[in-house]
Amino acid sequence: MDIDYLKLKEKYNTPLYVYDKSVINDKIHKLKDNFKSNLYKTEIIYASKAFSVKEMLRVIMDKGLSLDTVSIGEIYTAINVGFDLNKIYFHGNNKSYDDLVFALNNNVGTIVVDNYMELLLLDEVAKSLNKVQKIMIRLNLGIEAHTHKYIVTSHVDSKFGVLYNSDDYKNMINFINNSNNIKLIGFHSHIGSQIFELDAYKAEIEKLIRISKEFSYPLELNLGGGFGAFYTNEDKPIPLDEVAKFLVKTTDEVLNKENAKIAKLLIEPGRSIVAEAGTTLYTIGVIKKTPNKEYYFIDGGMTDNIRPALYQAKYDAFIVGKENDERSHTVTIAGKCCESGDLIIEDYKLPPATSGDLLVTKTTGAYGYAMSSNYNKALTPAVVFVDEDNDYLVVKRQSLKELIEREI
Amino acid sequence: MDIDYLKLKEKYNTPLYVYDKSVINDKIHKLKDNFKSNLYKTEIIYASKAFSVKEMLRVIMDKGLSLDTVSIGEIYTAINVGFDLNKIYFHGNNKSYDDLVFALNNNVGTIVVDNYMELLLLDEVAKSLNKVQKIMIRLNLGIEAHTHKYIVTSHVDSKFGVLYNSDDYKNMINFINNSNNIKLIGFHSHIGSQIFELDAYKAEIEKLIRISKEFSYPLELNLGGGFGAFYTNEDKPIPLDEVAKFLVKTTDEVLNKENAKIAKLLIEPGRSIVAEAGTTLYTIGVIKKTPNKEYYFIDGGMTDNIRPALYQAKYDAFIVGKENDERSHTVTIAGKCCESGDLIIEDYKLPPATSGDLLVTKTTGAYGYAMSSNYNKALTPAVVFVDEDNDYLVVKRQSLKELIEREI
Repeated sequence: MDIDYLKLKEKYNTPLYVYDKSVINDKIHKLKDNFKSNLYKTEIIYASKAFSVKEMLRVIMDKGLSLDTVSIGEIYTAINVGFDLNKIYFHGNNKSYDDLVFALNNNVGTIVVDNYMELLLLDEVAKSLNKVQKIMIRLNLGIEAHTHKYIVTSHVDSKFGVLYNSDDYKNMINFINNSNNIKLIGFHSHIGSQIFELDAYKAEIEKLIRISKEFSYPLELNLGGGFGAFYTNEDKPIPLDEVAKFLVKTTDEVLNKENAKIAKLLIEPGRSIVAEAGTTLYTIGVIKKTPNKEYYFIDGGMTDNIRPALYQAKYDAFIVGKENDERSHTVTIAGKCCESGDLIIEDYKLPPATSGDLLVTKTTGAYGYAMSSNYNKALTPAVVFVDEDNDYLVVKRQSLKELIEREI
Repeated sequence: MDIDYLKLKEKYNTPLYVYDKSVINDKIHKLKDNFKSNLYKTEIIYASKAFSVKEMLRVIMDKGLSLDTVSIGEIYTAINVGFDLNKIYFHGNNKSYDDLVFALNNNVGTIVVDNYMELLLLDEVAKSLNKVQKIMIRLNLGIEAHTHKYIVTSHVDSKFGVLYNSDDYKNMINFINNSNNIKLIGFHSHIGSQIFELDAYKAEIEKLIRISKEFSYPLELNLGGGFGAFYTNEDKPIPLDEVAKFLVKTTDEVLNKENAKIAKLLIEPGRSIVAEAGTTLYTIGVIKKTPNKEYYFIDGGMTDNIRPALYQAKYDAFIVGKENDERSHTVTIAGKCCESGDLIIEDYKLPPATSGDLLVTKTTGAYGYAMSSNYNKALTPAVVFVDEDNDYLVVKRQSLKELIEREI
């Protein structure tokens, strides 16, 4: 959709997060329409840590997706918009007693149990609340999808999950068999982020299905997420309809080959649904030339998008009104934070700019606003959704008063 | 001071930022008592971006220090505690028109002008408000103190400051000479962070004094900060009294040698005042063994301390009540965030722990709370000051309600 950024700047000011709802809808439909099989049920779970604000959860709810949460804060947000709590999956490597009490008291559908200690704690909580809790076990299958070090999650020493057939795993299965308060419905696994090759998922599916055959009833298998998004030309993401088809087809084939049955196949896309829908709108202020560099300084930076500093993440950008101008300058887009590492894009081709121009960084919809901070006491930006010709505020810009409201 | 962490956990819960006020006081006095000369005035400016909350600014105010701010948010916090606005320095590489209007309307004492464009904008604002604004120019002297890439600030292509004798510099001096609304009182320079060798400051002082001789009146010279703090045994910080003595002695010597005069010498310590005063208190939850690792999972992580993930920063830690136990386990302290990079200390020797133990990471007073985020919708921790036998809350823990208050 063509977004009128000038109008949005006028109306909401900058820095501003802008989400194109048609992109979100398109991504969801590509998955929904194709993630289907005759052999088992399917379920799509939105990984809300990528971008969890009330309006986003309403969109997810409207589309009938389930929700992956990793904290009380994310569950609370879901409760607040009236999300069906039975459709919530609660993840995390270190859930506390209080976390679990909160989840069970609110009837969260499925706890994705990360480890043996958590299982014991959960059993204790479920017993004390007189509940039978559905769980999945998060497995570490030792499959590693090659991306950035920080977003590789399934090497054998990962902080997440339990290794299949390890002592902890066997203890967990034994314990569950003897528990009256815990019901194992299946397994979860997650093999990485920004994955552009589907082979790794095939290995994952094969392993999970073989494991599931050890159980006397059909299990639910949650493949996690990690489907790539397009940030720059270096990324070659596979369209989500193809991803969905591949996963189902591969699962069908492996089930046939293994003569196995499962109850349900689940996936947890987060980034792949919201990343490309989001853009960030900045106003260019100072333009500075140094002996070997030209800087365009923007009115935001690492406080609203820490990914370039944290993961050396790459972004594309354009200047509003100069989309077709020749990109004749090699520039570095830097933020206004008092920190040298506060760069958004380094050594990047753009047209000549003048102070006051609007700069848009693309594909900022995932892990952008979600990771924003008040470093330098910067105010958290507003977030706007654009839906056809309509734009509306979904998160208000932080005020100075709010910035210090908890300080005594 | 011995801090009763068990009591603090009981009273305020975890994760918790704890500041030992006696350490802050000691650091300030080491500087104040020794940063003095007979040849010029001296001024110590606290770089509030390291840790800017109301109670911290009250301490700074009580001790008679000035304040380095980098945003409207930081200035607003200072206003809120009744800080003398004349003692405020306003930094930043990309101050906007609104930023400058806010600063001048609030009579901020000194604007540290980063670049030529800012100077023109400031002149316009000062003119329109009918003010004469005191400024310093931030110089890039091309001196580079060797630390982590992200915290090197003074190579020739830094985003900060203007190169001495560049066209921009000459244009700025010319412009100031012809402006009725801007008064140049001196120069600012900052040569890096976590600096453990004082030689770099000597080079800085020499350059600044030589530059100051080109002016017909004695200038104020602001050396910036960057004085190292002790995080681990890898760090060999120089005690602040010695730093202060060295800077004054060197300045005196260079002034004599150059037959020069200055009006004032200023420094901007931030980290070196607050880093070692701060600790973070966590509760250990799950303890997990993988084939080659042992994890202690804590109830916080990169949401309250992103420095390990962002800068590969190193920390020391101890377990409360087990300070004298043998450190027989090599463990990784990881947070509860759903992210592989959420590690606080990797492969570190600690005694055996049990779930429920309290873990304290040391030297978290600077750029810890200041960079905290709501990633994973984690709640921002509370902050407590300990002063002799008295502990008191200075920042309330974020509530679930506050977490989503701006979401529509």
